This record gives sequence, C-alpha cells and structure tokens, in this order.
Amino acid sequence: MPTYNAPVRDMKFIMQEMLNIGDLTKYEKFSEADTETLDAIIDHGAKFSSEILTPLNVIGDKEGCTRHSDGSVTTPTGFKEAYAQMVENGMLGLSANPEYGGMGMPGIWSIAAGEMQSAANTAFSMYPGLTNGAAKAIEIGGTEEQKKTFLPKMVSGQWTGTMNLTEPHCGTDLGLLKTKAVPQTDGSYKITGQKIFISAGEHDMSENIIHLCLARIEGAPEGVKGISLFIVPKFKLDEKGEVGPKNAVSCGAIEHKMGINGNATCVMNYDEADGYLVGEADKGLRVMFVMMNRARLDVGMQGLAQSDVAYQNAVAYAKDRAQGRSLTGPKNTDGPADPIIVHPDVRRMLMETKAFNEGARALIYWSALMEDLETVHPDEKFREKADDYLGLLTPVIKGYLTDKALATTIDCQQIFGGHGFIEEWGMSQFVRDTRITLIYEGANGIQALDLVGRKLAKNGGRALMTLNAEMDDFLSENSENETLSEFMEGLKKAKDSLSNATMWLMQNGMQNPDNAGSGSVDYMHMMGLTTLAYMWAKMAVVAQSKIDGGSNDEFYSNKIITGRYFILRMLPMLDAHFAKIKTGAEPIMALKASAF
Amino acid sequence: MPTYNAPVRDMKFIMQEMLNIGDLTKYEKFSEADTETLDAIIDHGAKFSSEILTPLNVIGDKEGCTRHSDGSVTTPTGFKEAYAQMVENGMLGLSANPEYGGMGMPGIWSIAAGEMQSAANTAFSMYPGLTNGAAKAIEIGGTEEQKKTFLPKMVSGQWTGTMNLTEPHCGTDLGLLKTKAVPQTDGSYKITGQKIFISAGEHDMSENIIHLCLARIEGAPEGVKGISLFIVPKFKLDEKGEVGPKNAVSCGAIEHKMGINGNATCVMNYDEADGYLVGEADKGLRVMFVMMNRARLDVGMQGLAQSDVAYQNAVAYAKDRAQGRSLTGPKNTDGPADPIIVHPDVRRMLMETKAFNEGARALIYWSALMEDLETVHPDEKFREKADDYLGLLTPVIKGYLTDKALATTIDCQQIFGGHGFIEEWGMSQFVRDTRITLIYEGANGIQALDLVGRKLAKNGGRALMTLNAEMDDFLSENSENETLSEFMEGLKKAKDSLSNATMWLMQNGMQNPDNAGSGSVDYMHMMGLTTLAYMWAKMAVVAQSKIDGGSNDEFYSNKIITGRYFILRMLPMLDAHFAKIKTGAEPIMALKASAF
Repeated sequence: MPTYNAPVRDMKFIMQEMLNIGDLTKYEKFSEADTETLDAIIDHGAKFSSEILTPLNVIGDKEGCTRHSDGSVTTPTGFKEAYAQMVENGMLGLSANPEYGGMGMPGIWSIAAGEMQSAANTAFSMYPGLTNGAAKAIEIGGTEEQKKTFLPKMVSGQWTGTMNLTEPHCGTDLGLLKTKAVPQTDGSYKITGQKIFISAGEHDMSENIIHLCLARIEGAPEGVKGISLFIVPKFKLDEKGEVGPKNAVSCGAIEHKMGINGNATCVMNYDEADGYLVGEADKGLRVMFVMMNRARLDVGMQGLAQSDVAYQNAVAYAKDRAQGRSLTGPKNTDGPADPIIVHPDVRRMLMETKAFNEGARALIYWSALMEDLETVHPDEKFREKADDYLGLLTPVIKGYLTDKALATTIDCQQIFGGHGFIEEWGMSQFVRDTRITLIYEGANGIQALDLVGRKLAKNGGRALMTLNAEMDDFLSENSENETLSEFMEGLKKAKDSLSNATMWLMQNGMQNPDNAGSGSVDYMHMMGLTTLAYMWAKMAVVAQSKIDGGSNDEFYSNKIITGRYFILRMLPMLDAHFAKIKTGAEPIMALKASAF
Repeated sequence: MPTYNAPVRDMKFIMQEMLNIGDLTKYEKFSEADTETLDAIIDHGAKFSSEILTPLNVIGDKEGCTRHSDGSVTTPTGFKEAYAQMVENGMLGLSANPEYGGMGMPGIWSIAAGEMQSAANTAFSMYPGLTNGAAKAIEIGGTEEQKKTFLPKMVSGQWTGTMNLTEPHCGTDLGLLKTKAVPQTDGSYKITGQKIFISAGEHDMSENIIHLCLARIEGAPEGVKGISLFIVPKFKLDEKGEVGPKNAVSCGAIEHKMGINGNATCVMNYDEADGYLVGEADKGLRVMFVMMNRARLDVGMQGLAQSDVAYQNAVAYAKDRAQGRSLTGPKNTDGPADPIIVHPDVRRMLMETKAFNEGARALIYWSALMEDLETVHPDEKFREKADDYLGLLTPVIKGYLTDKALATTIDCQQIFGGHGFIEEWGMSQFVRDTRITLIYEGANGIQALDLVGRKLAKNGGRALMTLNAEMDDFLSENSENETLSEFMEGLKKAKDSLSNATMWLMQNGMQNPDNAGSGSVDYMHMMGLTTLAYMWAKMAVVAQSKIDGGSNDEFYSNKIITGRYFILRMLPMLDAHFAKIKTGAEPIMALKASAF
C-alpha cells in the first residue's frame, strides 16, 4: 500500500526562504497571512492528506463511482465522509473571498494545500478543486445576486461545482458547440444538449451541484462568438435560496477511464434545464478562460503531485529492495545483496524525478505568488509584469510540467520492476492518474500552440523580454558567485538557447505558421527547462547563503546537489529541442494525409 | 472499438525488397521457404489477426482471467476457441524443428507472424509465445528422450509452456533464488518453492502446461552457480507420454495488473512437484539465457506491435475527427472544421510513430535474419558476425525499442484527446499493454547494463567494430548518392557520435564502473538511434532504386519522406544523450542514499 508524506520542509523552503511570502502580510488584503497560520494549515493539511486521503486513494481506484438507474451516483467508500470532514474543519475556501465566507489567504497557500491533497488522492481532490473553479467563474462574471446566492455555499463546500464545456463532437474547438439556450420570459433560459467528460458531474458528496455550462443562445452567431455561460444547478433553488426541486439536468453515464476512477466523469444530459446567464450573452468564453487559466496551473500542480508521491514510494522501495551488488563492490556486506539504490541507473531515475519535482514546485509556487502580487502590489509596472508572467508561463506549467511528470512517474514505476506493473503496489495508479493531466484543461499540444501562437507575441513579446531582463539582472548579481558558477553558466546557456529558438520561430513562423506549429511542443519544453533552470539557480543561491551563513543543515547542501543534477543532466535536452525546431514544418508536413 | 490491419506491404518490403529473404531458399534448411508460401502465411496471419484476435483484445482486457477455488483458471471468452483454431490450422510451430513436427521455416517468418498476433492481441499472443520459449529451452538443453516426449506436443500447441524464474524476493538477481530441488532415487527431483509473475502459468487453453522452472538442487553452491533448470509438467505423464495424474504445482493467485489482462499472470506454488533436470546440474542459467535472448527480441517486437496498432487507430481518428482549422487556412471548406491531421503537432506525433515503427521493424527483422543466417551460412566469419550482432543488438532491441514504443503509444493516445483516456476507445489498453515490455524479460535498465557492461567489451569490442566497418562500407558505396545525402550524412554523424560515446565509456568506465552504469541507458538509446539510422539509410537506398528504376508506386517516395523525418527530427537526440553520458557518475551518485 503506497504512502505519502507531504514534503513540508521543501514546501516551506520555497515559500518562506526562497519566495519570502511572509512579506505578503504588509499588504492589507493578506495582513492575517502570517507564518504561524501558514504552518498550522500546512501541518494540518499534511496530516489530513497522509492519514485520511491516502488510504482512500486505492479504494477510489478500485471501486470507482457507481451510477444507479435513477441517475444518482455513489462515490467510493469513505469519500463522502472525508469530504464532510473537510467542510466541517473549514479546510475549503482557504483563498476564497472573505465576503463570501472565504479565509482570504494568498493563492500560493491554496496551491500548497492543493498539492498535498492531489498527491494523496488526485481523484478526490478534483471535487473541491472544480468547485473552486466554478465559484471563481461566478465571482468573475456573475451578478451581485448570483454571487450572494451561490458563493457562500460553494466556498464552504456545502455545494460543489463543475465546468461543462466538452460535447461529443467538440472539445478543443468550442466554436462547434451545439448545446442550446432558449430565453424565457422571466430572464432565465432553458438549456438543452449533451456534455461529456464532466468531472464530478454527479455524486453524493454535497447537497447541490452548481454546473457552469457553455451553451449557445438561440439565434446567436456561429463559432466562438456566440457562446454564453450559464449557471445550471442540479436542484433549483427555492425562494430562500435553499435546495428546491430537481432541475432537468442529469447524469446519463459514467465513463470508464484509464485513471482518476474515484472521480465521477459524467455524460450530462440537459433537457430544458433551467439556467441563468453569467455575464454578457455571447461572451461566455471570456469568463471561462479566466477561470481555466487558474485551472491550468492546478493541472501542472497535479502532475507535480503525482510525480512526488510516485517518487516517495520509489525511494522507499529502492532502499528496501535488495538485488544485485553495487558496481563498485558490495555495500550491504551483511546481506546477500545491496539495496537497489546503489545502482546508478536506479539513482538516475530518482535524481531525475527529484530534480524535476523540486524545480517544478518552485516554478508553480513562484507563479502562484505572482498571481497574489498582481492583486496587491502598489506598482503598476510590477502588476503588469506579474500578469505577463502568468500568461506566458501558464501553458508551460500545464504542458511541460505534465509531460515531464508522466515521464518521471513512469520512471518511478520502473524502479519497482515487475511489482510496478501489479496494481497492489500502487505505482500503476500513479501513472494512470497522471496520464489525464496531459489531456484535460486543453491538451498539451494546445498549450504549446497557445504559448507560441498567442502568448509569445502578445504586447510585442513583452512578457519574455521582461523575464529575460529579470534573468539577466539575476545573472549579473551572481556573476561573481564562483561556488555556483555551474548554475549561472547553465542558466545563461539555457536563456540564450531559448532566445535563439524564439528568434527562429518568429522569423520562420511569420513565413509559414506551420513552422511555428511544428516546433511548438519542443519550444514549450525549452521554456520549461529554462524557467526551471532559473528556479534552480535561485534556490541554489538561497541554499548557498544559508551554508555561507554557517548552517549545517544538510537540506541546503542536498538542495545544491540536486540542482546540479538538473543543470548538468537535464539541460542538455535544450539543444535537441532546438535542433528539432530548426528543421521546420517540411519534414512533418511533407507526407500526404492519405499516406499515413 | 479499435481495429488492426497488418502492415503487409511494409512487412514484405522489408523482408523481400530490403532483406531479400528469398535468398534463404538456396540453403537446404530453408529450401521450402519460398515467396509463395511466405505470402500465403502472411496473408492468412493478417486475416486471422484482424478478424479473430483483434475483437478478443478488448474482451481479454475487460474480463481478465479467473482463478477458481480449485486453482484452475479460465481465460477470457473466446480465447480458448481462437487458440484451438490456431492449433487446428497448424499456425503454431512455424519455425520449429521439423523433427518434432515444426514447419522449419526461417525465424524471420515467425517474427513477422508474431508481430501481427501481438499487435492484434498481445495478451493472447503470449500463450503460444511462451510455449515457443519453453520448447526452445528443451531443444537446447534437454535429453533426446525429453525432446521426443515434450516437443511434438508443444510444437503443435497441444501442450503449452511457461518460464518460471522470478520469486518474491528475486527477479533481476537470480542468484538469490530459493526454490529447492531434492533428488529422488529414480533420477527425478521434488521441486518446492514459490514463483511469481508466471505468464500463462495456468489456463484452460491446452491439455497440459510444461513449466520450465529454475531451482537450486539441495547442497548446490549459493548464487548463480548453483541454479538448475527443470521441466515440471502440470500433469505428470503416463507411460505412453500422455497426460496422467496432476503434479504438485498449482496456481495460488492471479495478479491484478496494469495491462495484458487477458494473460494469466500467476503465483505458482511448487509443493514437492515432480521435476526433471534439463541439461547439467547447476548450469540451468546457460540454457535459460539462450532462450531469453530470443524472448528479448520478441519483447522488442511486442513494443513495435503495440506502437503500430496504436498508430493505425490514431491515424484513423486524426483523419476523422474535425476540430479547429489548419494554421495555413481551412482545408475542409465544406465542413465547420478541418480533420485534426492538418495540425502540425498531431502530424508530428504521427510522423514520429511512423518513422519509429518502420525503422524498428527493419531492425528487428534484420536481426531475425541474422539469427537464421547464423544457422545456415557457409562462411564461418559471417556466422561469427551474425552471432556478434545478435549479442550486441538484443539489449538494444529489447530496451531502446520498448522505451520508445511506450512513448509513441502514449503520443497516439494523446491524439485522441479526452477520448484517449476513456477505455471504450481502446487507446488506454495499448498504453497499458505496452508498459510491461519495458519491464519483463529483464527491465530496460538491465538491458543497458548488459549492453555496456558485457556486450560492448566482449571479444575486445569485436561486434561494434564489425558493425561500424559494415556501416562504413555502406557509406562508401553510397557516397555519391546525392539524392540521399541527408541519410548518409545523418548516419555518418550518428556513427561518429556513437563511437565517441563508446570511447568515453571505455575510458571512464574503467576508472569507475559507475560512470558506465550512469550513462548506460543513454548509450543504449544512442545505439538504438544509430542502428535505426542505418536501417533507414538502407531502406531509402532500396526505395530510391525502385524510383530510379521507374516505379510510380508512392510507397517508395513515402518511405523516403518518412525516413527523412527520422534523420532530421529524431537523430538530434544523439547529442543530448552524449552530453548526459559525459557528465559521468558524479551528479548521479553525489547524494547520500539517506537524502533521497
């Protein structure tokens, strides 16, 4: 049975020592976000994840969710009770608006809390996760009345939420969507259509489910310019805003999936269901996309979370399993074999995962802090920069981090040999659960197109130029740091390589957009590698300063060793990606479609 | 429901146009292996795979195998009947020794037939596949009487076979194995112990199961020098060699696995079961390893097979699914969206898979031909070369091809977006079934160690030197082929890069074996890339010669386009691997085990 212990030390290192999030308390909005409160929340979340959510993970995978003939859905044994406990303990709404009952803590706190829940039980964590997303959509686009009606109960967790975008014939291309909304005389709409892949679409964990649903108002323009967003509650509300009669929306089936089986992925049928417009008619995608950007950061975090729990279990196995002898002579001389952690190739896989995880955590948390600062920082220039970074890095965090997380999770499974393939050991579930992160919230190829086709060129390329300038400043500040020269050289090389690739794409993508499309995923990986190199260099500087300050805590020297692995063994991929990009569209597009 | 159509044209191109296997008929052993017979076998195998085995693939995954309270095991619906049909049609024993009822056809024919079965239904194909392996072991190591008793029934498929190596505490490190063999006065042995992960260990498809089991004879030396191989039939034989009373070996449990659910992976309990020594006492591993080398080629083939069936279904989906518009303007102007095959990133994944598959097929078939020629070629030098190549390339075919096959299969699943994650579409099963190929028959890290630690240095590095000389000759012959200059330059660069890496490993591995261990997987990938580049250059020469000869068959021009993709977009990985290798053991081994 796999275990999970939240990497509290590393989380706090990043939040407190690297990012100094204690500074947030100087802003009124976060004046109560002090270290003691954070520590209490992290420590409690860590305990809850290990003790409550982890044991339910395997159960969720085995049992899955059950749809009954009346369309109701039962979640796996224990899910309902664990969720009730979270609601009761006030664990939800950590960063939600206090006006609606939220705690108003920084978003970076939520990311950290979410990482622990997702690592322990990603299928479970999606129920509250999607509620946050749906509540966010209402907060961004809803009327005052809608906010007052729905948000307090969603923030507390009494009601949950969903996002209904995909239809059988359209996922990526929402312009094709057919779900219909017919205006009623009272200002509401009747929604009719079918949505698929609706996570947490139906379940028994909350007293109501608030569906956020994209539909096309009768007579609206075709394509993406005619899409509106609606609130469609599972149960309509009575005059007091409490649960009333059943609405005409129901779960038609639960999908049988490769993973995240504890989450009910539903086909949702809308049959003249009552719906309420959110924001302006025909402009539903705007609201949906604001919300989706945050969801994409969460998906990157889910990838990291699975990679981390897979790593922890692989480490335990590699220290325990004795097989063969070290190439440099026996290490466990009392036993008939050495633990497999002595073997370089086992270590290679563990180091790759560790170096990726810690870098990824830094990048995600750093981005989450940008999101917080964007809301409070007094300097407009800084707020603009934070917004630029988020736009630029969201596809990288979603796309690159999950691509890589799947690879590391597979490596961790590999360390178990045959046992990795047997469900009882739990490693298969980590791989299967991670697999979805490359797909949902916009498949990774779409992320790469978003990066190359939109984010890179936005505002004349300002985001990347600002980031480059920041990295240049950092390198100048640390140019005399000889102890960390490998980090600085690695970062500089990465930055230059990325710049060359950017230049190539700009010049050749203009000429033929397929040149940009053909190199987009490679480019996304290059930006992922470069930003992780930046995070690693920053972490190394912090760690080294602690060592120079006299700390004997091995955490710091280990941090530098891990970062060196990243710089030396992971950055070489940059050149390979650039070489591929430079071949352009021709080798990819030359074959006629009929010849495949 | 996924489909499969055997790539007959490509198989025949490789066998007949590239490898000229018709030439084998000039050797007496293969005098009947003419093109007409091959065509008939391939065409029949293709039909059987598509029509009979493919529909059973999903059923096998869903139903799995069932163990009953008496230890008997039922295979999925239809498996038994399909197997009976194969036995009846004489589809088994294609390359088996005619002395025991085999057809005596070249091994390359079997690889081709096996690829089709494995692509259609890999879990099913393992039942006959393991029988071939077990029969081979008896043929190599058994007495005349053993051969006469067991082989005819195993070759016909009336009886099946298994390999019993792994125990709960040992897989890779067989020296630790504990299963005990106690000599009896009649020359037989009583075998006692537990074996795990025994594919096809118990089932209802044949009237007897012949287990090949590794055990340690009482008093034998510890470690690998005290391991013997035994025949342990499920049912003991009566005096006529027919099925008699039940032997004391039984299935204790079926494992719940990530994939290949149609195959019964059993815990086998031996409780003083009657066993018969194969070959010399304490020298069981020799026989086992001869057999395992062939099994490793088969596993590489399984990887290719899954990658190919995943590719076929991804192509069909990419041509059918309309979503978004081409970056260069609408292509399907009559519809609201273009088929996703217009998108460069979808094509990138398809091209990567296609270029890998066709190269991998050439490498596997070429190696299988070497195995055939090793048995018949009159020139001792040539036989030595064939044996050298097989030794060198077996770990590459097993390790590199399956690593890469998993990646391409995942890419093909990705093309389906959300539908790829839903079991009904079948792509998840391809990924889950492919996953085992990186693990069994020696995990891929072990293959890399075998390559770097043993095969490379064997006979003073003769194998690689011979291969290099062959590639040099090929390059000289084609130095003036300007049409294919990209192929020749790519191959030359790959060869040089591999040579540099070999040199580095030899120099630095001597100094510290962990340097070799740390770079072993990267090196295995380099050799995989280089040998595929060689295969592609050879295929391109054949295709170009057909074009130059006036052929208008687009197969040939498509072959060259596909090969160009490999050269331009896949070879750039070589430099990344070499850069990683050159960092040596230090970044991998620097962290204390306790710091993981």
